[in-house]
Amino acid sequence: MYSFKNDYSEGTHPRILEALMETNLEQEEGYGEDQYSLKAADLLKKKIGRTDVDVHFLSGGTQVNMTAIATFLRPHEAAVAAKTGHINVHETGAIEATGHKVVVAESDQDGKLTPEAIQKVLDIHEDEHMVKPKLVYISDTTEVGANYTKKELEDLKTFCGEHHLILYLDGARLGSALTAKGNDLKLEDLPQLTDAFYIGGTKNGALIGEALVISRQSLKEDFRYAMKQKGAMLAKGRLLGIQFLELFRDNLYFDLASHANRMADKLREGIGEAGFGFLTHSTSNQIFPILPNSLIAELQQKYAFFIWAKADEDHSSIRLVTSWATKEEKVNELIDDVKKSLKSSARN
Amino acid sequence: MYSFKNDYSEGTHPRILEALMETNLEQEEGYGEDQYSLKAADLLKKKIGRTDVDVHFLSGGTQVNMTAIATFLRPHEAAVAAKTGHINVHETGAIEATGHKVVVAESDQDGKLTPEAIQKVLDIHEDEHMVKPKLVYISDTTEVGANYTKKELEDLKTFCGEHHLILYLDGARLGSALTAKGNDLKLEDLPQLTDAFYIGGTKNGALIGEALVISRQSLKEDFRYAMKQKGAMLAKGRLLGIQFLELFRDNLYFDLASHANRMADKLREGIGEAGFGFLTHSTSNQIFPILPNSLIAELQQKYAFFIWAKADEDHSSIRLVTSWATKEEKVNELIDDVKKSLKSSARN
Amino acid sequence: MYSFKNDYSEGTHPRILEALMETNLEQEEGYGEDQYSLKAADLLKKKIGRTDVDVHFLSGGTQVNMTAIATFLRPHEAAVAAKTGHINVHETGAIEATGHKVVVAESDQDGKLTPEAIQKVLDIHEDEHMVKPKLVYISDTTEVGANYTKKELEDLKTFCGEHHLILYLDGARLGSALTAKGNDLKLEDLPQLTDAFYIGGTKNGALIGEALVISRQSLKEDFRYAMKQKGAMLAKGRLLGIQFLELFRDNLYFDLASHANRMADKLREGIGEAGFGFLTHSTSNQIFPILPNSLIAELQQKYAFFIWAKADEDHSSIRLVTSWATKEEKVNELIDDVKKSLKSSARN
Amino acid sequence: MYSFKNDYSEGTHPRILEALMETNLEQEEGYGEDQYSLKAADLLKKKIGRTDVDVHFLSGGTQVNMTAIATFLRPHEAAVAAKTGHINVHETGAIEATGHKVVVAESDQDGKLTPEAIQKVLDIHEDEHMVKPKLVYISDTTEVGANYTKKELEDLKTFCGEHHLILYLDGARLGSALTAKGNDLKLEDLPQLTDAFYIGGTKNGALIGEALVISRQSLKEDFRYAMKQKGAMLAKGRLLGIQFLELFRDNLYFDLASHANRMADKLREGIGEAGFGFLTHSTSNQIFPILPNSLIAELQQKYAFFIWAKADEDHSSIRLVTSWATKEEKVNELIDDVKKSLKSSARN
Repeated sequence: MYSFKNDYSEGTHPRILEALMETNLEQEEGYGEDQYSLKAADLLKKKIGRTDVDVHFLSGGTQVNMTAIATFLRPHEAAVAAKTGHINVHETGAIEATGHKVVVAESDQDGKLTPEAIQKVLDIHEDEHMVKPKLVYISDTTEVGANYTKKELEDLKTFCGEHHLILYLDGARLGSALTAKGNDLKLEDLPQLTDAFYIGGTKNGALIGEALVISRQSLKEDFRYAMKQKGAMLAKGRLLGIQFLELFRDNLYFDLASHANRMADKLREGIGEAGFGFLTHSTSNQIFPILPNSLIAELQQKYAFFIWAKADEDHSSIRLVTSWATKEEKVNELIDDVKKSLKSSARN
Repeated sequence: MYSFKNDYSEGTHPRILEALMETNLEQEEGYGEDQYSLKAADLLKKKIGRTDVDVHFLSGGTQVNMTAIATFLRPHEAAVAAKTGHINVHETGAIEATGHKVVVAESDQDGKLTPEAIQKVLDIHEDEHMVKPKLVYISDTTEVGANYTKKELEDLKTFCGEHHLILYLDGARLGSALTAKGNDLKLEDLPQLTDAFYIGGTKNGALIGEALVISRQSLKEDFRYAMKQKGAMLAKGRLLGIQFLELFRDNLYFDLASHANRMADKLREGIGEAGFGFLTHSTSNQIFPILPNSLIAELQQKYAFFIWAKADEDHSSIRLVTSWATKEEKVNELIDDVKKSLKSSARN
Repeated sequence: MYSFKNDYSEGTHPRILEALMETNLEQEEGYGEDQYSLKAADLLKKKIGRTDVDVHFLSGGTQVNMTAIATFLRPHEAAVAAKTGHINVHETGAIEATGHKVVVAESDQDGKLTPEAIQKVLDIHEDEHMVKPKLVYISDTTEVGANYTKKELEDLKTFCGEHHLILYLDGARLGSALTAKGNDLKLEDLPQLTDAFYIGGTKNGALIGEALVISRQSLKEDFRYAMKQKGAMLAKGRLLGIQFLELFRDNLYFDLASHANRMADKLREGIGEAGFGFLTHSTSNQIFPILPNSLIAELQQKYAFFIWAKADEDHSSIRLVTSWATKEEKVNELIDDVKKSLKSSARN
Repeated sequence: MYSFKNDYSEGTHPRILEALMETNLEQEEGYGEDQYSLKAADLLKKKIGRTDVDVHFLSGGTQVNMTAIATFLRPHEAAVAAKTGHINVHETGAIEATGHKVVVAESDQDGKLTPEAIQKVLDIHEDEHMVKPKLVYISDTTEVGANYTKKELEDLKTFCGEHHLILYLDGARLGSALTAKGNDLKLEDLPQLTDAFYIGGTKNGALIGEALVISRQSLKEDFRYAMKQKGAMLAKGRLLGIQFLELFRDNLYFDLASHANRMADKLREGIGEAGFGFLTHSTSNQIFPILPNSLIAELQQKYAFFIWAKADEDHSSIRLVTSWATKEEKVNELIDDVKKSLKSSARN
């Protein structure tokens, strides 16, 4: 049984384990003040091309989102997200648990927000009897695999600036977004095009860890207090610093993401060649082919994956996720199985 | 410069890194449902001698405390803690951030709570104009190095039972407590003598990780929702399971704690022989000698540690912490330096 | 200028002011333990036909909703509401500020929830990565003027019972609902058909005040703690008790609501006779006629009301609200103005 | 049985009821935007001598405190209060329920804070592992009857300014404080000497209502959102506006407080003449005489009051509270009873 369930099925890239071993017995400061975390923050600033941003390392996506959003907003202010936004559906109300409403804006089926959709939200929030929309939450890639173009992000940033909104980008799969085919965004664009964003490690080869980058000056103050209060400050913060140092020492972070994307591209192409369509316009490491239920049942004998949604009586979309660790032979095998099944059903 | 600042200065016990390497490329379920986490939970239940407890793995002490306490209490209920209690002083208001007051009960200088002290708190909380004390928070070892005897814990449990209070034990340094000289508590006593407790990994050789054990039936329901909501569920939960599996596969967890305690015992004895007293009656891996400021200044040239409190004009207490990784030669060296300094000052 | 903006434009029914005057200089206990509040609670229990319910008096709708819901739910549990539900749109995120997500269920245009709509919500909330829907919030009358039939409420209660959901009814306009034409629900049905509900005073002739009735045993404990913590316990609680005593001493509460409904019925009939339609199927004291924008502009010269929604380029729906204090002559006048305008436009 | 239990035993000053009657059937805007609330805010600004402050009317003390403090602070920031501070003991954790720790500063037995006491709190809160003290909460009068001198308040304000702390004054009994013997503070000093304070109505003759005055510019924004979110915005806000308009139309507010103080002065003097001492140095309408338990038992036959604290085996302090409505004849009677009892016990 080979798993295409997610991009965190394996442990971590071997170089990361090696780095942990090499540094293991050195004595370091605790709580993110170790030399590795400090160096990793500096390195990220260099890669981003801005020394005036703040970089913090946290453990996981929900933790970053809730810590950042709870810190950035005043009590009556709300986050605006797509219906599919991770904070809206898959974080067990973590944002609300910090006191803030998540207001849903209409999005296309690819899970992307637009200025028009946010404007509609603003239009109906007119006075103090409603929450005040203040932060726009987007994900790149989105939860259904699409990625933002530079133009789209520029438009959002301009709109947010004009309306005094904070633009926050969830980069759990930022590696995949930045190396997706057709992507024209670069890491160094993000501090200018958002107020804060995070670079996801967990879903791109790290054992654990996300790097939050805060570029808007007014959002920086006392963020370490927030981390500590939310249980988001590791005593052995070195665990995070060492990993990001290794991922960004050279091009490893992007190489890992490119591999994941390439595997997804192969699947997309192969399944497409077999004549099947897709639920969303994914450009990244998550694809959502719509397959006959009978084929899905067959595939489930050999592969693990999630059934995403019912398409019609006889078809469903499934989610296939590739990662830095996905084996090309398994991808080929899956494509073959899809194609074979097709021929066999053609014969019948 | 050698550090006695804390017990999380080094990485992790080498066996843990080896276990991570061996399992690294296996595909596993996410979010704590991997086979390692499941096995580790089973193993802990065996070691504890109870199969009817729930075991959850979280990342750090503040995170466990805030997730557990927020989940166990209704909104108007409060936690009772010693003034020195970690949740009262060193967690940046994490408990209050979930809506609950921490009520301070008097404790002796060793940071231990007694039924009498808790009774006083109950006496003044008489009606709905005040919070309702509902959970008693204790730490073993305490924040100043003392440990509870079995009798003390039994008395607390009986008292809590009679007064419908939840007894929660913070075991960030439980290894050190259970292997301290004179300790008569065993790991398998704890499910009976508390309603929930956690077995600290981070401060006893793990890279990260604490194992929460919930024995009171009514506190178990839906705890995984709470973990997810508080950002306390790791996508790669295997990271936690693998470590606890390794720590408890044999006697490693207790061996590491015993080493830390033995190093502290040596320091305690040596510094005592040199004629110095201690701020608290510590039996574990944190000691608080009271030294002349001049000696402290000398020691600071070679060793890193925290100055804890001013004793008088010329003396202060310092905190020395030993760990699974503390080198005996460094302990000897420190003792020698203390004794030498004494002789030299005797000569002058 | 005469206002049809809402049902809280005037002060209070004169009998209530008289009762306040008569009792004014008596010394009473504070915080809802005065004899008037105690008597009012007893009286309500009698009217409801159940002595085993708990009755609490609070100041306003948002306050009751947030205090009750925050108290009834555990941190990861959510309230389910219609998109138009007051807690979802018009309480500035009060529920979320206590930590709970409001999950939107589909409703018809009348703002009513059905078992089917709630079932869909349950279907997509499958595990601990999402909030757990636990409380169903409905309003009678709904925010757009409809009322629930006994059958509809029975079906909801049965469904909630089967799915371990709490059924909570916001009765800000319960008086209007229970006296609406065609209504077959009685006050004494509500403890059986909900787990908790409130009897709205503010919008039915009181100066201030809502009476929360909790019938499910497990939701009762320590509710006064919750009230105090949320700032919902008045030092001079007599202010609330005296009013409810007066409203329910005889049939005053229902008489006031009947008047409001009768005024709305007249408006509905008159405007209907003039040939105009309505946005929702309102049976109560809020109606939403769809009028030509030119007529709306004319009416705004003499009457205050809210423009609710754009219908098409030339038409909008407006909201007209009647109350216990609405003058019949003003209702007639408004109808005349609508009809006159029609004739005049017919002539042109 | 005559009650000295508190200053909210009676209803309201008759002039307030008259004002409610006179205005009762006028149609007004809801939610504090009625002409009476607007006029009352203007009137208060005039009395205070500052037009650049914001004035909001809320229902009760706990509600004002929790709404203001939750709005003024960021999540990791804490309020500093005396141990006896109302927010620390008698509000059922309302502040913590909004996420903020209340840090206790040492105070003298009169419940007053000093710069020295606050400095000690600042000294131990050194980094992000602890909450950040940000708001200083004081009460005038304090919970045990003392009042601040102008000099004391100036010193606090200077200190708070230097340390970037918000100074917030709970004026539940501000009337009594400003009319206390020896007081040299004036209402018009308060906007300069605090960042926000409230003028208590409930405990000084109103039926309900407190007027919050915010003078620091940065604390003003969006406060009405906060009120709505906390259930603190009354649909019939006129109820609050009309009362404050009446209380401050002339000198009524201060006259009522003066009466309460004069009654307390008489009690203080009479009981002092009888040879008894007091627990605190009260200058206002709450006094805490220390009496023999036997005398207390006798007094309890005729008067209602709280027993405050045990003094020794045979003596306890009691709390006697006078109000705008306290009858002088009852005060005289109580004094006589105390003196008589003394003579009788002298005879025995």
